[in-house]
Amino acid sequence: MTGKVRTAEELAKGQKEISIAEFFEKNKHILGYSNPSKAIITCVREAVDNSLDACEEANILPDIFVRVDKVNSKFYRVTVEDNGPGVVEEQIPRVFGKLLYGSRFHTIRQSRGQQGIGISAAVLYAQLTSGKPVRIVSRTSPGKKAVKVELYINTKKNEPEIISKEEIDWHLSRGTRIELELAGNYVRERKQSVYEYLKETSVVNPHAKITFVEPDGTVHEFRRVSEELPPLPREIKPHPHGIELGQLITMLKTTRARDLKSFLKQEFVRVGDKTAAAVIEKAGLKPNLSPQLLGREEAMAILNAFMQTEFLPPPTDCLSPIGAENVIKSLQEEFKPEFVYATTRKPRVYSGHPFLVEAGIAYGGELSENRIQLLRYANKIPLLYQQGGCALTKAVESVRWKNYGLQQSKDELPVGRVVVLVHVASTNIPYTSESKEAVASVPEIIDETRLALQECGRKLKEYLDRKERLVKKKKKENVLRKVLPLLARKLSEIVGEEELDCDLVVARIVGNVYVRRVVGNSTARVEVYNFTQSKRKLKVYEICSGEVRVEKCEGEVKLRTSDRTTLVWELELTPGKKAELIYSFQGRLVNRKPVVSGVEEELLSGGEVFG
Amino acid sequence: MTGKVRTAEELAKGQKEISIAEFFEKNKHILGYSNPSKAIITCVREAVDNSLDACEEANILPDIFVRVDKVNSKFYRVTVEDNGPGVVEEQIPRVFGKLLYGSRFHTIRQSRGQQGIGISAAVLYAQLTSGKPVRIVSRTSPGKKAVKVELYINTKKNEPEIISKEEIDWHLSRGTRIELELAGNYVRERKQSVYEYLKETSVVNPHAKITFVEPDGTVHEFRRVSEELPPLPREIKPHPHGIELGQLITMLKTTRARDLKSFLKQEFVRVGDKTAAAVIEKAGLKPNLSPQLLGREEAMAILNAFMQTEFLPPPTDCLSPIGAENVIKSLQEEFKPEFVYATTRKPRVYSGHPFLVEAGIAYGGELSENRIQLLRYANKIPLLYQQGGCALTKAVESVRWKNYGLQQSKDELPVGRVVVLVHVASTNIPYTSESKEAVASVPEIIDETRLALQECGRKLKEYLDRKERLVKKKKKENVLRKVLPLLARKLSEIVGEEELDCDLVVARIVGNVYVRRVVGNSTARVEVYNFTQSKRKLKVYEICSGEVRVEKCEGEVKLRTSDRTTLVWELELTPGKKAELIYSFQGRLVNRKPVVSGVEEELLSGGEVFG
Repeated sequence: MTGKVRTAEELAKGQKEISIAEFFEKNKHILGYSNPSKAIITCVREAVDNSLDACEEANILPDIFVRVDKVNSKFYRVTVEDNGPGVVEEQIPRVFGKLLYGSRFHTIRQSRGQQGIGISAAVLYAQLTSGKPVRIVSRTSPGKKAVKVELYINTKKNEPEIISKEEIDWHLSRGTRIELELAGNYVRERKQSVYEYLKETSVVNPHAKITFVEPDGTVHEFRRVSEELPPLPREIKPHPHGIELGQLITMLKTTRARDLKSFLKQEFVRVGDKTAAAVIEKAGLKPNLSPQLLGREEAMAILNAFMQTEFLPPPTDCLSPIGAENVIKSLQEEFKPEFVYATTRKPRVYSGHPFLVEAGIAYGGELSENRIQLLRYANKIPLLYQQGGCALTKAVESVRWKNYGLQQSKDELPVGRVVVLVHVASTNIPYTSESKEAVASVPEIIDETRLALQECGRKLKEYLDRKERLVKKKKKENVLRKVLPLLARKLSEIVGEEELDCDLVVARIVGNVYVRRVVGNSTARVEVYNFTQSKRKLKVYEICSGEVRVEKCEGEVKLRTSDRTTLVWELELTPGKKAELIYSFQGRLVNRKPVVSGVEEELLSGGEVFG
Repeated sequence: MTGKVRTAEELAKGQKEISIAEFFEKNKHILGYSNPSKAIITCVREAVDNSLDACEEANILPDIFVRVDKVNSKFYRVTVEDNGPGVVEEQIPRVFGKLLYGSRFHTIRQSRGQQGIGISAAVLYAQLTSGKPVRIVSRTSPGKKAVKVELYINTKKNEPEIISKEEIDWHLSRGTRIELELAGNYVRERKQSVYEYLKETSVVNPHAKITFVEPDGTVHEFRRVSEELPPLPREIKPHPHGIELGQLITMLKTTRARDLKSFLKQEFVRVGDKTAAAVIEKAGLKPNLSPQLLGREEAMAILNAFMQTEFLPPPTDCLSPIGAENVIKSLQEEFKPEFVYATTRKPRVYSGHPFLVEAGIAYGGELSENRIQLLRYANKIPLLYQQGGCALTKAVESVRWKNYGLQQSKDELPVGRVVVLVHVASTNIPYTSESKEAVASVPEIIDETRLALQECGRKLKEYLDRKERLVKKKKKENVLRKVLPLLARKLSEIVGEEELDCDLVVARIVGNVYVRRVVGNSTARVEVYNFTQSKRKLKVYEICSGEVRVEKCEGEVKLRTSDRTTLVWELELTPGKKAELIYSFQGRLVNRKPVVSGVEEELLSGGEVFG
């Protein structure tokens, strides 16, 4: 050992307080500012997430304007403007100029922002790299003027420093605008870009209108496709099964409740008279105890009693799913697949936090690349980064996709012309870091995601199986179509009988609906055979250039007349049955073959499928 | 749109400050407390990292005691005790009871701790789950008494609250002890466990002694294998290429330097008279300007001038590598492989932060599983979690291991009986989150890691190639040994000449060193042939039970006599040459064949390799 021992006193001189702003300034990559191109995306994301949250909380259909301007080769200006409620003047400095300040941290409700860090971190990064203050414009009602504020964050103190403040005229009657200048790099490549972030955001926020102007002036408009605001998730109290001892002790100390029983009923969700009494009894306490006087031992007893008591799961109106139908619609619109399915699972709980999982799958069609696209969302925010470190990805990898007809190496993403969408909504998304890029491995979330994906997988498998069966059937049909006529001709030559209707025979063998029209002199006979294995409700359409008269009909016939006459024959056929329609007509038949609805194209011979 | 618009004023009511302690209480998984078994490991890690840092800073060889006790099925007590400098009494509360407080955040030097979060986060987690305060014992010199403090963190304020404080007798003359009770789950399985963390820590800290007592009483001792403390990394000033505009503006405002030139020279590393003058000229400024009066424009000009100026890279004595030799020793000891190699790269810089990468590889031998083991280290801390999300892993995956003789699927870890160790040391490790589990994707770090790994790969390849060549050679040799004698006998039968020395012929064909002893009546002749392609320095040992006299010798001979006589013949042979030694002896020859050193076993025929 060499040298002198240094004492605690000598070493103590270096001890210092670190402000949270200093901390994040040094560790800016933790907040999503690890490189210049990501920095721009992160800034846009923080601002847009805020706008969407604010509009929804204020009950306003969001109309958001995003613009990225190039200042010079290293610097960009990001502007985000919304028609939301605005921010009251006194709070502008701290909302934008102080880390760990916000309204959503202390409430239990699904929202995009939860930590009070995002937007002030963007301000911090901007001033760190460009040295320029943030510029905010806010207007809280048409009756008031807008206010424009420029400010810095004092990083040593984590407090805002206002540079200028003035009332201005503004084109919006209500809203917020933020302007940041920052070191950045603008990229347009497919996956990790402002465009992609906004597109994916728009996909799951059909009620938002987003306009995006790129540095070169290109304008993208992501239209509002739903005029309905999703219902605002309701704020709830903590659930007894989601509380830690330390938290409970704090709650006991700070509650306004006078006695233990009211404490339990007031401060927790799903605790009523009965359950409160049961908990108090199990804990060996008295209902009229003053909560403020209870210590660690009593808190521990209450916690144990909580664990031994059944409560209803937390109410789920604190969550706001996208909805399976919206997911299906979005996937269809975006990817034009041949198959799509989505499901919204029932809400569940992890550590007392309600959450729910939604999943969707799209297959084939215009999806050309043989490579999965995985779309991850948390509280309707698209997650563009850290796919590998995300629990949602792990859940997708852990599903045995081979069972569902996709190729897959063990514990990897499946391969195929496939898009998988996963959304987790919660009052408390367990992100792996402040940058909100990946979801931590919470077993309950992984399990629910797996279940949702397995449901999607089963539906995909059904589709693929049916598709395969139909392909096989078609092959068989084609072979029969070639062989049978030869056979039939030979047979009729030998036996001398009338030639067989081969199409009918083929239809019978492969199990189709078969329709046949025999036209005589101004009359036609239409026959329908159901050789499938299920009962069919069918409609057969015949179109004639002149008048029509029904001579015989098994089923019901409606006539529609314009310049042509359309004959709509409605009938129901059990398997193996046949029905007949005879009509006389003037003029000529317009449709080459009878048109049929109520049966899939692959199961129909002799006619054409409607539509 | 439904319902009333809520105004900014209504929404503003929810706005609140969030304390950093509250924030981490809610987001404890970010700090490494995502599940009960990880919680114990993280607590131990934070305390041990602190102990190692403190001992090294105080110039004390660390002697660390770790104990995990089971309190009941849900709670464990973690105790960590060191012989470090202790913590001065006034600072105990804030060091352990306030997040973002510490001595290492504001200094530029390699250390395990850097954020002032770790140990107080452990305290926070403990009190949150068990409701119990932390217990600290600290003694700063043998002349003083130890002090014992119990405290909580007030999470609403992020300030310590002292429960009790007293002077006590203590068995250590200097040191710190911390005792935490927390909800946890103790696991012993191989990879992610307290044992594994301590073992991996010990591997790269050969100067530390660590004693570990498991809950069941099992004691593990990780011995000190080096009595030398690694040199304490030196603190440095920021490097001009590692500074952001915002930081520069703050430095200008807060410096004590009177003029711009002294500012540059005093506040930055690698800036001397000449470079300072050059920077000032390029920035279009005057050297005698007062730094405090310079604004954003001037700061920008200085920054641009920095970028256009060449500086020496930052000094590297702020870094403390493990050392390639230590890595090799550790890998050998731990895994008993047949091949091992390690390299320490030269220091480099990313964003002005010095860093260096070390890598080691071990292959075969007692490594039985055909599966890679990847050991990741950052500033000598083993990284047990988030392998998938770590830049070091990405670097390993991105190397084309097939070129180096290992199997690998594209962009995955290689497969084989192989251990890969990677260590990155830096004044500022870019962790992906506060839990210090993974290194963020900094291109410079990934590049350096790749280079280090490629060097290891090349050495492995050389070894594997040589091994393969030797295997082939052995095969050839074996074939020759079977065939030649038959051939030779046939030949001598026909020609009638003396039979060939087949061994000599084989040795010549395969290119070996060949040694032959011919024993006559109390004399022996030893011949050595060098059929290899390189010059050889050889020693040949002959051992005799009685006296020995050298009759003829090409080279040099030494005699060692104890109860036996050892004859050491030193000779140098160029390729194709032969040398001879003749000696007479009494008694009997002890060694069956001549023993040879200076040639690998695979390249020797006729003798035995020494050792």
